[in-house]
Amino acid sequence: MNDLVTLRDPVADPAVLAARLRDESAPDIVEALNQQPPEVAASVLLGLGAERAVEVLDQPGLDEAVEIVEALPRDRAGPLLAGMAADRLADVFRLMEEPGRSDLLERLDPETQATIRALLAYPEESAGSIMTTEFVSVPAHWTVGQTLDHIRRVERTRETVYSVYVLDPASHVLRAAVPLRRLISAEPGASVLSAAPGRRPVTISGLASRDDAALLISKYDLLAVPVVDGAGHLIGIVTVDDVIDAMVQRQTEQVQRFGGMEALDEPYLRISFGEMLRKRAGWLAVLFLGEMMTASAMQGFQDELEKAIVLTLFIPLIMSSGGNSGSQATSLLIRALALDEVRLRDWWRVALRELPTGIALGAILGGLGMARIAAWQWLGFHDYGAHWGLVALTVGAALVGIVTFGSLTGSMLPFLLRRLGFDPASASAPAVATLVDVSGLVIYFGVAAIILRGTLL
Amino acid sequence: MNDLVTLRDPVADPAVLAARLRDESAPDIVEALNQQPPEVAASVLLGLGAERAVEVLDQPGLDEAVEIVEALPRDRAGPLLAGMAADRLADVFRLMEEPGRSDLLERLDPETQATIRALLAYPEESAGSIMTTEFVSVPAHWTVGQTLDHIRRVERTRETVYSVYVLDPASHVLRAAVPLRRLISAEPGASVLSAAPGRRPVTISGLASRDDAALLISKYDLLAVPVVDGAGHLIGIVTVDDVIDAMVQRQTEQVQRFGGMEALDEPYLRISFGEMLRKRAGWLAVLFLGEMMTASAMQGFQDELEKAIVLTLFIPLIMSSGGNSGSQATSLLIRALALDEVRLRDWWRVALRELPTGIALGAILGGLGMARIAAWQWLGFHDYGAHWGLVALTVGAALVGIVTFGSLTGSMLPFLLRRLGFDPASASAPAVATLVDVSGLVIYFGVAAIILRGTLL
Repeated sequence: MNDLVTLRDPVADPAVLAARLRDESAPDIVEALNQQPPEVAASVLLGLGAERAVEVLDQPGLDEAVEIVEALPRDRAGPLLAGMAADRLADVFRLMEEPGRSDLLERLDPETQATIRALLAYPEESAGSIMTTEFVSVPAHWTVGQTLDHIRRVERTRETVYSVYVLDPASHVLRAAVPLRRLISAEPGASVLSAAPGRRPVTISGLASRDDAALLISKYDLLAVPVVDGAGHLIGIVTVDDVIDAMVQRQTEQVQRFGGMEALDEPYLRISFGEMLRKRAGWLAVLFLGEMMTASAMQGFQDELEKAIVLTLFIPLIMSSGGNSGSQATSLLIRALALDEVRLRDWWRVALRELPTGIALGAILGGLGMARIAAWQWLGFHDYGAHWGLVALTVGAALVGIVTFGSLTGSMLPFLLRRLGFDPASASAPAVATLVDVSGLVIYFGVAAIILRGTLL
Repeated sequence: MNDLVTLRDPVADPAVLAARLRDESAPDIVEALNQQPPEVAASVLLGLGAERAVEVLDQPGLDEAVEIVEALPRDRAGPLLAGMAADRLADVFRLMEEPGRSDLLERLDPETQATIRALLAYPEESAGSIMTTEFVSVPAHWTVGQTLDHIRRVERTRETVYSVYVLDPASHVLRAAVPLRRLISAEPGASVLSAAPGRRPVTISGLASRDDAALLISKYDLLAVPVVDGAGHLIGIVTVDDVIDAMVQRQTEQVQRFGGMEALDEPYLRISFGEMLRKRAGWLAVLFLGEMMTASAMQGFQDELEKAIVLTLFIPLIMSSGGNSGSQATSLLIRALALDEVRLRDWWRVALRELPTGIALGAILGGLGMARIAAWQWLGFHDYGAHWGLVALTVGAALVGIVTFGSLTGSMLPFLLRRLGFDPASASAPAVATLVDVSGLVIYFGVAAIILRGTLL
C-alpha cells in the first residue's frame, strides 16, 4: 500500500544528481533530496563535499535526516555530524534508535558528545531542547574593539551571530546582550558594556516551553533569547529561526488536534499506514464511545418518538447546530487563551458574553428553522400534520436552547482543560460536538414534552 | 452588554501611571496600556516623553493604537507619528477612518506622507503591506570600511539593521545582501561586494503574499527578505519580526476558520457584540441551510422510519462518526497542502490512501457499534426487537460506508478549494460534517433497505 502512494521522483543516479545540485542553495538541495530514498540521498550528500553536506544536514526541512545519517558509512558520518550545529544534531540523535545512536554518538569528539548529551537531557518541546550552544560571549572587562576582533575570529565557526553576550568575568553570570549593530556604532576603545542597551537582558530557563521562548522573541522583537540556568549562567540561545520552525510545527499539531486526532509527527504521504491508523483510530473510537450515549438517550425517548415520528426529521439539523456553535466558541477561546487575551480567571466574563451571543445565534437559526417548516407546509412540499405550527415552535425553541448550550459548553471546555493542567488546544471540534449532542437531544425532547403535551405527546 | 465583559483594570490616573511605567520596557508598557481606555492610554503616552511614546506606538501588540492616536491632540499626534516605523504607521493608517485619516496624514512631512501612501497602496496581506522602507543600502563601489561608517551614522534612525543591501550605482538594481556579521569580519579596505555571500540574494515582489515572505524567511533562515519591484529595485524589506506577527495572526485566523466562523480581527473580549454575532451567524446560517437537506432526506425515508423506528436510535451516532472522520482528514490535508508536503496533482495519491484508511477506521467503529448493540440486547438493557442481529449488521455496515465516505470527502475538500482558487484552509470541521451528514443518511437507509428487506422493511 505504501509504495502506491509515496511522493518520490524516479530514483536518480546519485553522482549525476550530486553534480546537478552542487551549485544550488542548501534549502533547494534539501527539496531535491526529499524526493529520493534515504540511501540515494546519502550517496548524493557524500558527492557534494563535506562543507555542503554539513550545510544540508543542518536544514530542518530535510525530512529523513535520521534515515540518511544511518545510511551513511559510519566512518564518513562522524566528521559530517561533528560539523553540524549542535541543536540540529541533537534533534537528529533524539529521533535515532539504539544501538545506532550510541555507536554514532561515541564517534564524536568528547566535547561535542558532552554538548549533545546535555541537549538530549532537556524534555521535548522545551526551550533547552531547541537552543543552540554556539553563541559568542565575552567578559565584561573587554572593550568594543576587542569584542569585534573576537567576532572576526570566530564568525566562521558560529551558526549565527546576532548579539554578543557579556558575562561577569568572575561568576560567568550573564550581564548584557549587545546587538551587533550597536557594537558597530560604539567607540572601539569603550567598554563593551557601554554599548549594551540600558535594560536587563530578557532570558528564559532551559526547562521553559519552546512556546514561551517564541512568545518572548515575538513580544520583545528579539533575534535570539539567551537560555540561562538557575544561577544565571548562559547555557545557550534560542534563535528566531528555531522559533519559526517550532511555530510551523506547532500550527500543524494544533490544526490536527482541533480536527480530532493525535498530531502526526511525519508528513502525510510519508507516515506508514499503521501509524496513520493508530493516530486517527484512537480519538475516533473515544468519540464514538461518547456518542453512544445518544443511542441511550434516544432509547429513553422511544415512546415520544413512536407517538410523534415527525420529531425525528429534525434531529440531525438540531444536533449539528449545537455542535457547530460549540466548535466556533471552542476555536475562539483556544486562541484567546493561547494569546493571553483571556486568562483563566476571566471564565465568567466569557460565559457572560457567550450566553447572550448563544441566545441571539439560536434565535436566528430558530427563525430560519421555523420559516422552513412553515414554507414547506404552505407550499405543500411536506405535511407535518395538524399540529405543524407547534412542531415548528418546538424546533425553534429547541434551537435557541441548544445553540446557547453549545456556545457555553464550547467556550468553557478550553478553560476546563487549562484548569485541569492540559493544553486548551487539545479541545477539538468533534469532541465539543460529542459533548453537545447528548444534551442537545435531551433539550429537544424536553422542549417537545412541554410544547406538544396534550397534542402529539 | 459590552461594559459587563470588558477586561480592563480600574481606570487609572494618567500621570501616576505614566510615572510608574516610565522605566518599563516598551512591550511591558503596552501590556499596561491595553488595560486602559484609549483616552487614558493617550494621556499616559504624552506623559512618557516623545521617544518612549514612539517606541510604544511602534509595538504591534498595542491593541487600540488607532483609537489612542485619534484620542491624542492633533498637534501632539503629528510628531509622534512621524517618528514611528513606516510599516507600523501604515498599519495604523490602514485601520483609521476618514476624515481623521486624511487630516492626520496631511500633518506629516511630505516624504513620510509619500512613503505611507505607497505602503497603503499594497493590498492587505501582501508582502508590500508589511514591509519596512527603512533599510540600509550602499552603492556597489563602496568599501567595507565606508559601509561600516555609514551604518554608524544611520544606526539610530533605522528600525533594524540585519543586512546591508548593495545596489548597482547606475541602475539601483539590488546586487547583494551582506549580513552585518560578514561585514565585521571583512577587510575594511575591500569592496563591500567581496563580503557578500556567493549566491544571488533571495527577493520577493511587493505583491506576493506575506505567507510567501514567511515561507522564504523560514526556508532560507533569513532575518529579512528584500522586496523588489519589477525592475529589481529595492523598495523595502520584510523583517523576521513582522513575519512572526503575521504567523501568529494567521494561526488564529486558521483555527477560527476551521472552527466554522469568519476570523475575528480583534481580541475576543474587545470585539463588539454585533461584530461577534455577524462573524459567527453568517457561517452558522449557511451550515444550517445546508443541514436542512437532512430534514428533506429524512422526509424521504419517513416510510422506513415508521416501519423500523429502531433505526432512528442510531442516527446521531452514525452521522457524527462520518463528520468526525471527515474533520480528521480535512485537518490533515489543510496542513499537508499549506506545507507543500502534498501538491494539487497528488489528489489521487491521497484518495488512494484515504480509501483503505477509511475502510479500516469504519471497520473498527462498526465492530464497536455491533458489539454495543449485542451487549445491550444480551444484558437486557434494551430490546432492539426480534431482528436485532440484522439491525446490528446494518449499523456496522453503514459505519464502514459512512466513515470511508467521510474520510474521502474530508480529504478531497481542501484540494477542491485550492483547485477553485480558494485557500484550502477555508475548509472547516462543521462544513465537512454538513457535507457528510446528508450522504450519511442516504448510506444508512440504503444499507438498511438491503439488509432489512423482508424483515423490518
